[in-house]
Amino acid sequence: MTNQSTDFNLFGADALKAAFRRHASGVAIITASTKAGDPIGFTATSVTSLGSNPPLVSFNIAQGSSSYEHLVEGSHVAIHTLTTENLALSQKLAGPKEDRFKDVEYNLVSGVPVFPHTSAVILASVRTRLEVAANAVIVVDVISGLENSEAEPLLYYRRGYLTTGERLADNF
Amino acid sequence: MTNQSTDFNLFGADALKAAFRRHASGVAIITASTKAGDPIGFTATSVTSLGSNPPLVSFNIAQGSSSYEHLVEGSHVAIHTLTTENLALSQKLAGPKEDRFKDVEYNLVSGVPVFPHTSAVILASVRTRLEVAANAVIVVDVISGLENSEAEPLLYYRRGYLTTGERLADNF
Repeated sequence: MTNQSTDFNLFGADALKAAFRRHASGVAIITASTKAGDPIGFTATSVTSLGSNPPLVSFNIAQGSSSYEHLVEGSHVAIHTLTTENLALSQKLAGPKEDRFKDVEYNLVSGVPVFPHTSAVILASVRTRLEVAANAVIVVDVISGLENSEAEPLLYYRRGYLTTGERLADNF
Repeated sequence: MTNQSTDFNLFGADALKAAFRRHASGVAIITASTKAGDPIGFTATSVTSLGSNPPLVSFNIAQGSSSYEHLVEGSHVAIHTLTTENLALSQKLAGPKEDRFKDVEYNLVSGVPVFPHTSAVILASVRTRLEVAANAVIVVDVISGLENSEAEPLLYYRRGYLTTGERLADNF
C-alpha cells in the first residue's frame, strides 16, 4: 500500500462518516421518563466519561430526537452498559419509539426505567447541555450505580454489532 | 444470579468507574501543534460523532492536560482512528509527553502532525469548548479526511487493549 497519509481526499460529512465507520464504540442504552411518567429511552454509542472528580458522563443527541425535551437540567437518567446478551434490547431501543418498552422487562428506580441483565447501570442527573448546530452534548452527574452481568461487551463497528476479541496488552 | 437490577450499591466515582470498566471504547489519537510549532498529541477513548450536518466531532479532556491550552477556538487538530497495528503508537501517545513524538514517523499537514498507517484521519478545527468542573468537552468542525489501513480496530476495555471479535448482527 502506498503511504496515503497526507492525501486528504474526503471532505466534510464524507470525512466524518469514513472515520466513524472505522471507529468501534461501546453500546449503551439511556433511559429517562416524561413528566407524565412514561418511559423513554434510546441506544447510544456516544457515552463517555468526563472525569471522576466529580464523576461526570457525557453523551450526544440530536435536538430533533423525541427524547431531547425530557433531558433538561435536573432530569434523572439511567445509563446502561450493554453485553452481547443485550443485542435484542439494543436493537429494540434503536427502533420505533412506540415499541421500545413493549414486552421488555424493566424496573422503575427514581421514576427511571432500569433494565436488568445489562453489565452496569449508572443513575445520574442532567447537569448541563451544550447545543451545537442541530445536536447537543449532554453532561450528567453520576449519583449511584450497580454492576450486573459479566457477559462480553457489545460493540458497534462498520454498521453492525460485534463483541470483543483477542486481548493484546494490559494498561493504558 | 439474583436479579440485582435495582440494588444501586455504588456511589459517585465508584459507580462511574465500575460502569466504564465494563464499557468498551474505540481508541483514537488527537494531535495539534503549539504556537511555536511543536507537535502535541494524546491518546483518547472519548472521540465520538456529534452529527453530520454540519459534520462535528466531540472529545473530552482534562483542563489540567498539557494539551488543553493549545486546543482553543480555531486550532487545527487531526483525529486518527487506530488499528491493532497502532498499539505501540497508542501506548506512546499515552505515555510521557516529552517522548510522544520521539522516533515516530509523522507528516505535517496544515501544521498538524499526521500519523500514517492509522485507519482514518480527520482534519478539523476547534469550534467550541464546554468547561465542566476540571474537564472539558471539545467540539470540532470536520474539514477533511482520508482513509488508510484496513486492519482491525483497536479497542480499550477493562484496562487493556483488545480487538474486535465475532460479528453478531448487521445494521443499527
